[in-house]
Parts: sequence; C-alpha cells; structure tokens
Amino acid sequence: MSVRKLGRGVALVGAGMCKFGAFPEKASRDLFVEAYKEMGRSVDKGFDPKAIETIYIGNYSSDLFERQGHTAPIMADAVGLCPAPAVRIEDACASGGVALRQGVMAIASGMYDMVLVGGIEKMTNLPTAEVTDTLGTAADTLFEIPAGFTFPGFYAAIATAYMHKYGMTPEHLMNVAIKNHENGSLNPNAQFGVTIPDWMKGRVAAAIKKGKPAPAWQTVWDFLHDDGANPLVAWPLRLFDCSPISDGAAALLLVSAERAHEFSEKPIYIVGTGQASDSPLHDRADLTALPAAHLAAQQAYEMAGVTAKDIRLAEVHDCFTIAEIVATEDLGFFAPGEGFKMAEDGVTARTGAKPINSSGGLKSKGHPVGASGVAQVFEIWKQMRGEAGPRQVPGDLSLGLTHNVGATGNTCVVHVFEKK
Amino acid sequence: MSVRKLGRGVALVGAGMCKFGAFPEKASRDLFVEAYKEMGRSVDKGFDPKAIETIYIGNYSSDLFERQGHTAPIMADAVGLCPAPAVRIEDACASGGVALRQGVMAIASGMYDMVLVGGIEKMTNLPTAEVTDTLGTAADTLFEIPAGFTFPGFYAAIATAYMHKYGMTPEHLMNVAIKNHENGSLNPNAQFGVTIPDWMKGRVAAAIKKGKPAPAWQTVWDFLHDDGANPLVAWPLRLFDCSPISDGAAALLLVSAERAHEFSEKPIYIVGTGQASDSPLHDRADLTALPAAHLAAQQAYEMAGVTAKDIRLAEVHDCFTIAEIVATEDLGFFAPGEGFKMAEDGVTARTGAKPINSSGGLKSKGHPVGASGVAQVFEIWKQMRGEAGPRQVPGDLSLGLTHNVGATGNTCVVHVFEKK
Repeated sequence: MSVRKLGRGVALVGAGMCKFGAFPEKASRDLFVEAYKEMGRSVDKGFDPKAIETIYIGNYSSDLFERQGHTAPIMADAVGLCPAPAVRIEDACASGGVALRQGVMAIASGMYDMVLVGGIEKMTNLPTAEVTDTLGTAADTLFEIPAGFTFPGFYAAIATAYMHKYGMTPEHLMNVAIKNHENGSLNPNAQFGVTIPDWMKGRVAAAIKKGKPAPAWQTVWDFLHDDGANPLVAWPLRLFDCSPISDGAAALLLVSAERAHEFSEKPIYIVGTGQASDSPLHDRADLTALPAAHLAAQQAYEMAGVTAKDIRLAEVHDCFTIAEIVATEDLGFFAPGEGFKMAEDGVTARTGAKPINSSGGLKSKGHPVGASGVAQVFEIWKQMRGEAGPRQVPGDLSLGLTHNVGATGNTCVVHVFEKK
Repeated sequence: MSVRKLGRGVALVGAGMCKFGAFPEKASRDLFVEAYKEMGRSVDKGFDPKAIETIYIGNYSSDLFERQGHTAPIMADAVGLCPAPAVRIEDACASGGVALRQGVMAIASGMYDMVLVGGIEKMTNLPTAEVTDTLGTAADTLFEIPAGFTFPGFYAAIATAYMHKYGMTPEHLMNVAIKNHENGSLNPNAQFGVTIPDWMKGRVAAAIKKGKPAPAWQTVWDFLHDDGANPLVAWPLRLFDCSPISDGAAALLLVSAERAHEFSEKPIYIVGTGQASDSPLHDRADLTALPAAHLAAQQAYEMAGVTAKDIRLAEVHDCFTIAEIVATEDLGFFAPGEGFKMAEDGVTARTGAKPINSSGGLKSKGHPVGASGVAQVFEIWKQMRGEAGPRQVPGDLSLGLTHNVGATGNTCVVHVFEKK
C-alpha cells in the first residue's frame, strides 16, 4: 500500500441531489439536471458554470438500464457544459465514489481548478427480475453468476458466514433497517422516508379501510418477522434487509483548496481518499469482511492524518443491512464481530457516539447505484455545514467519512472530509 | 479553454497489445492478459508488477458485448494486481485514450508513481446487427437512434456534407483504405493485414479454384467499385470504408518522468494531453469537422509547447475513411477541405511528409473500440523507439500524436509524445 499526499488540496464548495424514487417519466439526464441545479443553489457565493473545467460522471450501467452508453458527454450537454472534457467512471455501485476520487486527482494534478462530479442511475425502467440480472453483471459473470448467485445471494452468504463466526442472529440485522428508516423519515430526498413503525401502522390502516381483517402485529418485531409483510429474499435477508431499486442523481462542485473561499462561506475539505480492488467473492478465504474496504480506509486515514476514532459521522454502503455492520468493522470503528452489537446498542444511531447513515442510507434513501457514492457526500456536506435540519447530527462535526462499495467489495473507496 | 502544465512529468516505459481479430474462444480478460504480458516484455530494464499502484481500463461496453460490468477489478484480478485500485473509463470509442489521460493525471497528481493503462473490447460474441445496435448506444439514444441512424449512417452524413462543401468524391475515400491496408499488411498484430491488391488477387484465385468465372477486375479501382466485392454500407461509404468488428486489448506502463530511466533505456514522454466534449451530432451546425477534436489538439499542443507542424507521425481515429480525412484537418495538419487531397497525393503515406496510421489504423489493424486508443499508443511507442520493423517510418521521430474519438466526436482526446 502506498499513500502519498495530494499535489495540492481540494475543497467541496457545492453539493446537490434530486429526490430518489421511481420516475417513469424521466431519463437519467433529467435527474442529473435537477441535481446540478440543486448543487448550483448550494454554492454560497455563486459561480460561473463556464468556469467548470472538467466533468466526471459515476454511472454503473446506463448501457443495460437505458440502452444509453457514452453517458458523460450526454450529461455535459444536458447542463450546457460542452466542450468541457466529460468522463464516465464505472466501478459498479462504487462508480460515484470513484468518480469523486478522479475529480480530486484532476485538481491535485494541477490541470484543473474547478471540477464537476456527478452520479446517476435510472434503474426502474426494467422489470425487477431484469434489474437483478443487470446488477448481477457486476459480479464475475463467467464463474459466479452461472453458479446461481444474485446480489441478495452474495450478501446472504456474507451474513450467514458472519452469523456462524460471531453468533449474530437475523434479528440483529433488523436493528440496522429500523435505524436507517428512522433517519430516512427525516430526509425529504429519501425514496422510502418512513419509519418501520409508521410503515406497520399504515399497513394496518389500509387493511381496515379495505374491510379486511387487520394484521395481528403488536410490535415492530412482529411486523419484521411476518413472511407476508417482510418476505424472505435470500435467507437470512428479508425485504427490509435490502436497499430498493431507485432512480436518482447527485452532483458536487470541487475546487482547488486555495480558491475555496472565492465560492463558499463554509467549504468542506477532502483530506483523504483511498481505494482498493479485490478478487471476486468466490476467490476469497473469508466472507466476514471486505479487505478492500479496510485497505481503502487505511489509505484515506493515513493521507488525512487521522484515525478511525477521530471520525465523527459516516455514510456507509448499506446495500444490505449486513453490509452496514461489516462496513463499520472494515472502517475500524468497531472490532470484528462487534458491529452488530453496536447497532443493537444504539451506538450507530443519529444521536449515538458514532452516527452511521444519518441520511437513511441506501436502505431508506434509495440506491440508484451510480449516484449513491455521490449522494453520500451530499449528506456529509449538509451535516458538516449544520444544514441537515431535523436529522442534524448533534455536536461538532469536524471530520466525516464516506464508504462506497462495488459488487461484493471488488472495489471499495473511502473519503475523509474535514471542516477547517 | 484552460490549459495548465501537469504537476509533474509522465513517461511511457512499456507498451503491448495482443493480435486483433475474432477470437470466439477468448473472453476480454484473456486478451488483456496477453497484452499485459507483451507490455511486460517491452520494459527494457524490467519492473516488479507489485510496484504498479493503480490501473485504468478503457472499455466501451463489456456490459452489452459480454454481459460483464465492473470490468476493471476483473482485469486487475486476471493479471494478479489486486488490491491496486482499478477504474474503468467509458467514453465510447475514446475510452482507451481517456483512460490514458486519467493515468497521466494520476501520476501528475502526486498520488502515484507507476500506473497501468489498459484498453479492452470483445465484440464478436454478438451477431453483426446487434453489434451495430450496441455501438448505436454511443449516440443519443433518445433523439438520434429512433430517427434511424447507425454509425455508418452518421459518418455517411459527415462524408456527404464534406463532399458537398469541398468537392470530394467517394473515390477519394478509397485512397485512405488503400494506404491503411498497405501499412497494416506490415503489422503482424493487424486483424486484416493484407493490401487491397492482394485481397483482390486472393478473391480471383479463390474463384478460379472453385471453378467459377474469375471476376473481371483489372485494377484496384475495379475491385473497390464492385458492388459485390465492396458493397455499399451507407452511401457513399462501402465495406472498405469501414473499420471491422474486432476483439482486442492493449496495455501501457506509465511512470513519473523522474523515474523513467529506472525502467527504460528509451522512454517516451507524454508531454501533452487534451480532451473536449460536444453535443450529439444532431445538435451541431456543421458536419464537416469535429470541433472537440480541434479543441483537444489545441490543448495538447499548448501543453507540449508544439504546433501541428512539429508532429512527425500520428495515429488517428479512422473508424471510417472519412474520419481520417476530417481528423487530419481537425488536428491542424492540413487546412479544411485539403485532407482528401493530401491522402490522394501520398502526403499521409508511411513514407510521406506526414505519415498517418502507420499501424494500418482502425481500418486494417481492427477496432476493438475500448482498446483502440491504447493500441494507437503502442504504435507510437514502437515507431518512436525505432522498433516498428518493416513498417518503420523513416527519419527522426521526435514527436508523435494519438487522436481518439468517441461516437461522432462527442468525446475527442489527443496526446502528444516526445522522445527526449
């Protein structure tokens, strides 16, 4: 592992996202225009769009989802930024985080002073089974997919290995879903911004309205154990352990650190970036951790000159509930085998000692895969600037982190943000 | 247009490619392993693969061609380079050139000293009509493709506009095909490494062998005008105006300039890089030039401190014969409307004043789209080091150039190489 300092500093001076959801009337370019405009409004002192020198777009598979390739110049054109160089970055569900990293390097290289980073995905065009197939192409399609794996299956394998090794039960996973829906219920951009208790009450009310017998749930746990309300997807993962299929986009404006105050009253500095790759899951010795996430975090911490303890809040890649638990261990927040206990004890709650996914995470906010890594940064931006409204994490948020995973950790990318 | 110097210099110390062609028994990872090994053999003083710090893979659509996404870590794994960060770059047929540019930035940023750049595409899995459809996704699929366009159609529109404006005839285009097949016949890696006269003779011999009447071609021009031997694809473009459908891969090893002599007796320095985007073709005022190519070239020249006149040889993006003619004008080698005359006069021949596509170009060498921009650099490497064998361009090749185009110039990327 080699970590060197960036050639020069990089600051975030604007961030925006569109509401995540299912938008049959919109193409990904429409969503990106919304996110870009929102980003523009967030730049405290304004900026000239013509000063944007290059564009990175994180996108997993507009090819298969929309039959549209060469997506980066399409997005540049949609927001009126041609002839700025436009580059699409693809690293499966880590595409957004890796696009951010390329934006950071573009500034650090000395070539550019102002860079737009976007993330997009438009997934709901396809029927659910085809979405599952399309996401499956992020795995090794010569060895893994022909063996019958899907992504819920991969993460179910990770969950069962973790349960076997550390004594976790499926009920522990539900703590992550409950927490993330609580956070997401306070996020107006969330696709499923509703708490699980409210969800349960809604289903009871709907049954009564239809003149049907109301379900016999007395507690949240009754609801989450009901095979009808929360069906098994791949044991031990149930519906509420899985992030949804989503449409969405997000956008960030980066500038060289020395120019940050030209644009922003409260810039956020990107002080650490790390990325690592790994073999496909079928070639790994242990399923209970993602080594690439650990390596990426170590690189980012070393570059930033911080440790896991210093991080005040994090957005992590909870494509499935088990993924959040493993992430909090890979990042060094908790020891291996401790993550599920911390979720149970409320340590990762919004008001806990280590708030994780204050946005609602992929689970509640939605997971338009190429956009997710960029939208994570939007949350860090809002929180560290104290602009997160009812979901504001309390205390002094001097250091934040994003953790974005492609496939089963074949790509992991981590960034550290600092308020100076 | 903003052009700044790179934070630090970048050198090419190794280059390799596999033979281009149709290989039904191989996946893109197999082709990449071949190219990587060939690259390894080209590093004069050897290198430790573990010293490779990050990997950029140019690939257009493994998604649609092979139903394999998340291609970069798959390639990193195939050559044993995990956990190095692996990033896929997609900018349609310019993916390879843009991957090189990201590799240059990664070194210039100060983050890395040694970077692997690869390009891959495995296209022949699909039937020809599906390949045409898949390539069509590089255009604007909401506006252009529903109107009936395919890529031969786009470039036919460019050719007819150029003919109308400058008085070119379809016969002028054939000069490009004849030249590039002459060059390609000297390139052992070429998919169709045969001159057009030899092609013609071969067809005559085959007919006689089968006891059929031999075709009545007396000259190359007879052959190229024969609707059977050289059928129309999209008027005025015929079969021999089009690059083929190909499988292939290429690989480059970049290091920081100050370390070049640790690895190479004769490093080649990358002294200029430029890239620009453009609106889809249907939104442009003029079809006879690609403005993004002109801009990219101006950026690369300015960074390198050279002019078009100084360039001694160039590999340009001849996906169709008309594209080479337009490229030589966009790059400033010839005035607008002069390119087709220069091809006719032999100025662009291998032994001419401005040798273009000594490798045989996309036309003869093959066009595995994501690999093409990287394989262009392989040719520049061989030529500038004086290792191109029978196709060696004569004279002192102090400055070389590559020009790589995505779609109809929605992305253009240009690099300038110098032997110091």
